[in-house]
Amino acid sequence: MEEKKRTEIATLGEFGLIKHLTENLESKNESTLKGVGDDAAVLEYKDKKTLVTTDLLLEGVHFDLTYVPLKHLGYKSAVVNFSDIYAMNGQPKQITVSLGISKRFSIEDLEEFYAGLRLACEVYGVDIVGGDTSASMTGLTISITCIGEADTDKIVYRNGARENDLICVSGDFGAAYMGLQLLEREKKVFAGESDFQPAFEGKEYLLERQLKPEARKDIIKELSDRNIVPTAMMDVSDGLSSELLHICNQSHTGCRIYEERIPIDYQTASMAEEFNINLVTVALNGGEDYELLFTVPLTLHDEVITIPGVRVIGHITNPSLGAGMITRDGTEIALKAQGWNSLND
Amino acid sequence: MEEKKRTEIATLGEFGLIKHLTENLESKNESTLKGVGDDAAVLEYKDKKTLVTTDLLLEGVHFDLTYVPLKHLGYKSAVVNFSDIYAMNGQPKQITVSLGISKRFSIEDLEEFYAGLRLACEVYGVDIVGGDTSASMTGLTISITCIGEADTDKIVYRNGARENDLICVSGDFGAAYMGLQLLEREKKVFAGESDFQPAFEGKEYLLERQLKPEARKDIIKELSDRNIVPTAMMDVSDGLSSELLHICNQSHTGCRIYEERIPIDYQTASMAEEFNINLVTVALNGGEDYELLFTVPLTLHDEVITIPGVRVIGHITNPSLGAGMITRDGTEIALKAQGWNSLND
Repeated sequence: MEEKKRTEIATLGEFGLIKHLTENLESKNESTLKGVGDDAAVLEYKDKKTLVTTDLLLEGVHFDLTYVPLKHLGYKSAVVNFSDIYAMNGQPKQITVSLGISKRFSIEDLEEFYAGLRLACEVYGVDIVGGDTSASMTGLTISITCIGEADTDKIVYRNGARENDLICVSGDFGAAYMGLQLLEREKKVFAGESDFQPAFEGKEYLLERQLKPEARKDIIKELSDRNIVPTAMMDVSDGLSSELLHICNQSHTGCRIYEERIPIDYQTASMAEEFNINLVTVALNGGEDYELLFTVPLTLHDEVITIPGVRVIGHITNPSLGAGMITRDGTEIALKAQGWNSLND
Repeated sequence: MEEKKRTEIATLGEFGLIKHLTENLESKNESTLKGVGDDAAVLEYKDKKTLVTTDLLLEGVHFDLTYVPLKHLGYKSAVVNFSDIYAMNGQPKQITVSLGISKRFSIEDLEEFYAGLRLACEVYGVDIVGGDTSASMTGLTISITCIGEADTDKIVYRNGARENDLICVSGDFGAAYMGLQLLEREKKVFAGESDFQPAFEGKEYLLERQLKPEARKDIIKELSDRNIVPTAMMDVSDGLSSELLHICNQSHTGCRIYEERIPIDYQTASMAEEFNINLVTVALNGGEDYELLFTVPLTLHDEVITIPGVRVIGHITNPSLGAGMITRDGTEIALKAQGWNSLND
């Protein structure tokens, strides 16, 4: 096996490191006036609103470097922030990146992380405008702030859902969670073996959803092309059930979704069977799907279903009806932020 | 001794905790359209430029909770970000706050931290628009992003210093560093004693500079009142010498400062003597002063010295002359980012 080159961070120092990692960054957006290299970045959002979101990712809590390659981690760290901006019906434009780094990491490690960050920024048209690194006592800390823009009349909040609105989702659910279970299992099986070569054939989709998720820029464009402004929208990071409850709470409504309409990939279904986990629990509560959950008026039904990858899974109700799911056998179950009543008993 | 009340964070959960910490936040700024509670904050910067800066603070690296009260830590975490915005000649308007929290911390601990944050925001007219907490395996992680505004023609970068410009500073230098040395010494002396009551009489200024620094909003106002736009500006976080080198490097100039003109408080001087540390090294390289370092054209000399607390410490030179300091005995010493040549030998 070839030894990877390892250069200690101390050889560059903090300022040298940031300079090295951020050199040759070219601005892609008009709104980026000044990026890395001063006390603050300078942006210009003329007739648009400015959106700001931030995410903190901690080693051992949010990611496990035993099986997450640093390049993928860089990509994912950026994309989960973009996803929050799309969820407001906006476009991500800039990110700032702060890293806390222990001595375990080399310059080559950070180059890989930045390669992932840069790739994500390339794909989504985002500029890296601020970088900051500092020593850390323990592991890797990643803090990313994303700034984006939206037209004033197009911003979508969580609180705009109205009775009879359709509940729509993009993509499918539960795959990222099953990907995580798979990685955790292989980690245990191969613990201690340095030539870690687990067999992942036929499960690539699950791994991709866990390790290299994408944000639904495409759905935001399809909505815009059809002049559809959802009444409420979120991205699904904590789980479909939990996010749906946020929309219902903030919009003061109830909802009904239908088990049979929740989109699930066959790889997710087959892994859930292998692991003997309830499939619908996985889809409702797995999280990290980074799909869009949104509501539109009933009158837009015929139009919204023409968007590739979008499905209607239920509707918004009067708040007195609560938030519930109709199962395949017609039973009604209350939605919970984590798991169902019936499973928690 | 009265026992402090301790409520476990688990009793509220992540969403409950954020709601609890950020309730009753009222927006102070027109540019804040939507704060905490959605996928992203929504801001509106009409005819101004938007400034963005971010800081990551890690327990054990940037702060020691043995002697830093959480309320002070909250205050300082916010202020160091405001300082970066003032350093661009802007006004801080919003912050987002991400915390990584280990089980060691209680709800009451976080309430104290937020009390400090809120106080700083009150004093400086800033809105808290985003909050995020997550579990941490080890200690406290604080990531704050500050968004501010500036008039297009008033933004000051690091790269605008020109030959013969005057080098000006606010306040005095080295006090925060001596405050830290003092706290570290008392920590060692009292290690193991639970009734930690060190004697700090006559050294209050040093402690205040370390534990509760202020950003120089007042200087930015005084400059604006006199229609002075500095040619270059930074805030002094890493040390006067290091920041001056940044300005010289980015402006492609040299500089000469005069040892006798560097403002130093008498408490700093007396502590340096007590610790047997070279006073000028402390003032040049101590860091965490959060004072402003800026350059103005020579023609503004008579005006700039009327600003309370501002002193001219030298001038910008041709790059061929390098960056140097003239000592009290007339010797010329090259400025280094950390320590001097003469001390490093």
